[in-house]
Amino acid sequence: MNPILVENTRGGVVESFHRGSICIVNKEGEIVYSRGNTAQISFPRSALKFFQHIPLLISGAFDNFGFSDEDLALMCGSHNGESMHVEKVEHMLTKLKLSLKLLQCGAQQPTHKRDFIKLIKANEEPTSLHNNCSGKHSGFLAYCKFNNLTLEDYLSPTHPLHQEIKRITALFYEIPEEELVLGVDGCSAPIFGMPLYNQAIAYKNLICPEKFKNSELTNACNRIVKAVTTFPLMVAGTKRYCTDLMAVTKGRIIGKTGADGVYSLAIPEKEWGIAIKIDDGKMGPQYQVAHQLLKELDLISSSEIEQLEKYGNSSLVNFAGKVVGDTHAVVLNSKN
Amino acid sequence: MNPILVENTRGGVVESFHRGSICIVNKEGEIVYSRGNTAQISFPRSALKFFQHIPLLISGAFDNFGFSDEDLALMCGSHNGESMHVEKVEHMLTKLKLSLKLLQCGAQQPTHKRDFIKLIKANEEPTSLHNNCSGKHSGFLAYCKFNNLTLEDYLSPTHPLHQEIKRITALFYEIPEEELVLGVDGCSAPIFGMPLYNQAIAYKNLICPEKFKNSELTNACNRIVKAVTTFPLMVAGTKRYCTDLMAVTKGRIIGKTGADGVYSLAIPEKEWGIAIKIDDGKMGPQYQVAHQLLKELDLISSSEIEQLEKYGNSSLVNFAGKVVGDTHAVVLNSKN
Repeated sequence: MNPILVENTRGGVVESFHRGSICIVNKEGEIVYSRGNTAQISFPRSALKFFQHIPLLISGAFDNFGFSDEDLALMCGSHNGESMHVEKVEHMLTKLKLSLKLLQCGAQQPTHKRDFIKLIKANEEPTSLHNNCSGKHSGFLAYCKFNNLTLEDYLSPTHPLHQEIKRITALFYEIPEEELVLGVDGCSAPIFGMPLYNQAIAYKNLICPEKFKNSELTNACNRIVKAVTTFPLMVAGTKRYCTDLMAVTKGRIIGKTGADGVYSLAIPEKEWGIAIKIDDGKMGPQYQVAHQLLKELDLISSSEIEQLEKYGNSSLVNFAGKVVGDTHAVVLNSKN
Repeated sequence: MNPILVENTRGGVVESFHRGSICIVNKEGEIVYSRGNTAQISFPRSALKFFQHIPLLISGAFDNFGFSDEDLALMCGSHNGESMHVEKVEHMLTKLKLSLKLLQCGAQQPTHKRDFIKLIKANEEPTSLHNNCSGKHSGFLAYCKFNNLTLEDYLSPTHPLHQEIKRITALFYEIPEEELVLGVDGCSAPIFGMPLYNQAIAYKNLICPEKFKNSELTNACNRIVKAVTTFPLMVAGTKRYCTDLMAVTKGRIIGKTGADGVYSLAIPEKEWGIAIKIDDGKMGPQYQVAHQLLKELDLISSSEIEQLEKYGNSSLVNFAGKVVGDTHAVVLNSKN
């Protein structure tokens, strides 16, 4: 059974808590630290996005349409549906000369209430542009258009796009294609499941791609890392851990969230990959665990800790704004 | 460690799951079924509401102001902030000749998006009337006004109202006052924590109050049970398990939710009290567990099961309306 990683208190007692597992691997693929069951199968969900666009880059499709690094960051992102994101996705579709109607990710309410209220006040409904995955889907369509593949079934697991993504996933996650568990993501895209260990391995490979001895793959990884760390606002948005982590550390740490309590990290200075999964799927505790790990492992400075602390430990505030408890990551003893 | 009670699947594998504990006690206070740690301390949260209004009833305050059974159900409820709830709370304050400004529960957005959107479109902000506990707070104010107690500090744990609630809580939960853990609830009211076993005991005592040999207490319990089962829409609202459970079973089963994954039940035909707590505090799994228990124990008919099944097992549907997995309670083997 996986250990308790985050506790929520009220009146001085633990009222609820979150269990989960953690895996850190080094360049050699050895586990340097773990908690819980690293063989537990889960889906990386949106943490797969970085790899889902490697086919787009190595095929030449990305450059063909004149996309920018900022576009790439948005394609790799799980954005808030803020106007900066929505406008950029619209712009990408214009570059592709494709209609919004082709996006099959489904309509999703913007993440922040502020943006949702703005939409309602303008008498508008959320569309598929607001879906946190609309950038990813635009990238999918770009790959299909460039390679003369059918567009209407671009989310079918048997579509050549997803066959190629599957090949890349198997390569980077170091798991045979036939062992990947096929699921459907929140945005209807095929998603692959695998042990937590392999999720850590993939993020290590993202920053250490030389082992594949393929300059196109290396270039693709380098471009993705550069894009997401240069334009972190595109990867998530305002008041989001992924964005703030990469902005505050100036790209020294790469982090990507995934639905259902997933967090993946790459630490170039250590050549480490890290995967975190919260058992119960709650969104929030995975950031607390990531922050705690980075603190304990001295991977972020005291000034960076301070700027990111709100994602780690915080007071529990009720409807009237009164502090009634706190939420905190437990000490992980991750430092040897 | 508490067992897994609810599983969420995707692509045929369990992607996330919820652990928790269950306790069922009979009239004698013996445990007839349990899972997990029944000594684990947690807060009943809104499941305490039924008991928080016993002082109001036995003091004569409730009848003095001419409140109805429907008012009592709303005082005991965690409502959706729908217009039927908001209007009734306003009406209760009118009966009390007290201003809305005295309610200190804090502003809360209505539960359902539909109601929230209606509010925004009307250019209104959520107020403390929309707070799911505004009925409870009106009951608190009624007690204070009738007993000539100060109103501005009615949420202080040392206020005579909460001293009296503490006495009643200790009595019904069968735990010494000094062992109750004091916390502050989401609505700023004092809340008491205790082992799960005692939470089951309290719901048994609610329907078997004769043991206290106090006709006022017995009357108060009977009135509360009658009110919440006769007016279940006031206890929660549209598309809510508490409401539908009591409506569908025509009051044969009494159920009340509490924040952070709490559910309490009273089963008059068995003279049982039941308490459920989800470890991670997620709202939803506790209804799945309650539904599974009632099914396994043959406490609801097949027609009732069908009407309530959506709160038990359901498909996991993504943004595009596609079924991508399911969520289900595990078999609890609760039947001897």
